[in-house]
Amino acid sequence: MSETSFSSTSLSIRAAELDAADELGKLRERFRLPEGVVYLDGNSLGALPAGVPGRVADVVSREWGELLIRSWDESGWWTAPERIGDRIAPLVGAAPGRVVVGDSTSVNLFKALVGAARLAAGRGDAGRTELLVDATTFPTDGYIAQSAARMTGLTLVPVEPADLPAALGPRTAVVLMNHVDYRSGRLHDLPGLTAAVQAAGGLAVWDLCHSAGALPVGLDEHRVDLAVGCTYKYLNGGPGSPAYLYIAERHQDAFDSPLPGWNSHAEPFAMAPGYVPAEGAVRGRVGTPDILSMLALEAALEVWEGVSIEAVRAKSLALTDFFLECVAAYLPAGRVEPVTPAGHAERGSQVALRCPDAKRLMTELIARGVIGDFRHPDVLRFGFTPLYVGFADVERAARVLGHVSG
Amino acid sequence: MSETSFSSTSLSIRAAELDAADELGKLRERFRLPEGVVYLDGNSLGALPAGVPGRVADVVSREWGELLIRSWDESGWWTAPERIGDRIAPLVGAAPGRVVVGDSTSVNLFKALVGAARLAAGRGDAGRTELLVDATTFPTDGYIAQSAARMTGLTLVPVEPADLPAALGPRTAVVLMNHVDYRSGRLHDLPGLTAAVQAAGGLAVWDLCHSAGALPVGLDEHRVDLAVGCTYKYLNGGPGSPAYLYIAERHQDAFDSPLPGWNSHAEPFAMAPGYVPAEGAVRGRVGTPDILSMLALEAALEVWEGVSIEAVRAKSLALTDFFLECVAAYLPAGRVEPVTPAGHAERGSQVALRCPDAKRLMTELIARGVIGDFRHPDVLRFGFTPLYVGFADVERAARVLGHVSG
Repeated sequence: MSETSFSSTSLSIRAAELDAADELGKLRERFRLPEGVVYLDGNSLGALPAGVPGRVADVVSREWGELLIRSWDESGWWTAPERIGDRIAPLVGAAPGRVVVGDSTSVNLFKALVGAARLAAGRGDAGRTELLVDATTFPTDGYIAQSAARMTGLTLVPVEPADLPAALGPRTAVVLMNHVDYRSGRLHDLPGLTAAVQAAGGLAVWDLCHSAGALPVGLDEHRVDLAVGCTYKYLNGGPGSPAYLYIAERHQDAFDSPLPGWNSHAEPFAMAPGYVPAEGAVRGRVGTPDILSMLALEAALEVWEGVSIEAVRAKSLALTDFFLECVAAYLPAGRVEPVTPAGHAERGSQVALRCPDAKRLMTELIARGVIGDFRHPDVLRFGFTPLYVGFADVERAARVLGHVSG
Repeated sequence: MSETSFSSTSLSIRAAELDAADELGKLRERFRLPEGVVYLDGNSLGALPAGVPGRVADVVSREWGELLIRSWDESGWWTAPERIGDRIAPLVGAAPGRVVVGDSTSVNLFKALVGAARLAAGRGDAGRTELLVDATTFPTDGYIAQSAARMTGLTLVPVEPADLPAALGPRTAVVLMNHVDYRSGRLHDLPGLTAAVQAAGGLAVWDLCHSAGALPVGLDEHRVDLAVGCTYKYLNGGPGSPAYLYIAERHQDAFDSPLPGWNSHAEPFAMAPGYVPAEGAVRGRVGTPDILSMLALEAALEVWEGVSIEAVRAKSLALTDFFLECVAAYLPAGRVEPVTPAGHAERGSQVALRCPDAKRLMTELIARGVIGDFRHPDVLRFGFTPLYVGFADVERAARVLGHVSG
């Protein structure tokens, strides 16, 4: 018996033991996953919650087809953006009335950044002219930040996350940061950076796409100013499901949206020529909400019933720890280079591995039923959704990676 | 036999004859409509096309649930915004590559108006400082125009549609108009007003929410600059289904979106820090497209197979003519006042009737299975979707209105 197969047997046994002891293991039944697949791409598109197909069928055939226009009231369509926002709120540490669902992440980023720039301008310090943005962030954040800066008169300043504290100062108006970097999986220090930005006199805007649903965020507790996130990754809302916007309670009355659509009006059905913004997070609404996708998301959020985000975080760290251990056991040293930080305090719910033939390896992995994704130019990215990924999945993924990279 | 019942019999016979001769009558089979209902609110939420429930179920259970992330390529999700745009294009008189689907109407209005303001600025005439907007338009248009004006340095000038030609001049940068007024049902002269705006040196932006799918628009033919529209009214895409943006071919290379999300990048998966816009209408994309709603819309558009928009327009005018005739026969003179113009050239696909007790009357109509809607403060609004509304429906609606208003 070779060393590899010995360690393989031993790690398989460990995986079985870990799965047996996993209190979240039964949550997998709340999802429909294809047979024989290890799905480690929930940080790109979350798996299908079992309750979604039936709910969507009912929305289409009964609520739309039979009740027709009456469903805006009778089926609760009109209030869905704030109702579903309140459902997401506890997962990101927000009280009710602070999160509203709708539009894409990019559109919400625009609202948040322009809104933050206006809040900053309202403080009357004309010397605050800079919008700082994480230079390594998901590109849409940079593109939208550039547009928001251009349209509010701010200067865009790209900064490496490590250099951010030193870049803060009397010119800082707004700072946009990613809680977890989409490529490396690095978790940034949201409490510390938010406090630093605010101590420098700026407003802190966070993009939660790669953290919400995978780890505690604590928006209210850490006094984040504004935040956005998507719902199709760890929240399993479905492809392109609507994003959300968080507005801290202390900013809601002064939040001045650049997209004041009729849904954000205090009395939308008065159809009045003058715009009067609604109170609360509803002010972040824009146009008519996309009901099919939004109610699919609402059904998807039912998988969180009775689940604590702290337990999810504990399992996420155990999964990524175990994956790194299995990779170290199954692959020769140096074959792949972990990009994701080893320290728990700096690790999201993914593991990124760098190697020159990453593109080919991911194709081979997918052909063998292990689905992660490739990020240009040389990164294998594996996301671990604790609600439906188990330790045996993790062991198998690393073992198959060992085979295809051998 | 009273005069009313005599005329009722006569109009019922006329309705049956008109339905028998209606070449579009068989299209009703392409929809699922509740039994016993006359649905005259398709200008608010179109009815459910029969092919949608099955298609949505397949998207949810197979494309999302089984294929998961692979569906972005294999199921054609990624290219859906431009593919569905090309499907809508012939209905609004546009060539392929000029329409892109996604986001709400309000968000597309913002893109179109800021884009138009930048095109205007690019012409180098600093004296063009005004954004003119129809003062009677759907409120979101006015609110978004106000925001676009504020963020581009233009001055918003609300104008009554009748006063628009006189308001045009050397200060005109951009003009936003509604093709059909949402309240009165008045059809504006798109070719004539577009030409007048352009003759004055401005750019013409049209909101097609209440015309697309009900009558020919001719965007390319009439050299419209930019246009937006929703898809949940006469295009039957479902509640809050994604809207669309039209960019005239001559403006595409210079179109400069205020929402340059990663989906509008020339190479979105390069995830490059610098923004380089894609070519064509794709430049109007923003974030990840909302796939469930978008593919429901795509399935809904199949009802247009073999249908000409000219035939739809002819039937629409016949339906509204017949409705006005029935209302005149069944209600005492002066009981309701038609707000929609009598002339075909000025009439959309709806009839608005004003009366002081409109709110109560609409409640009673709906209780009797005749669904229209009420618009504050005193308007009964009836929309006529020629694909599924017949002449017997029209006669019944007017007859029931006669009863409840008697």
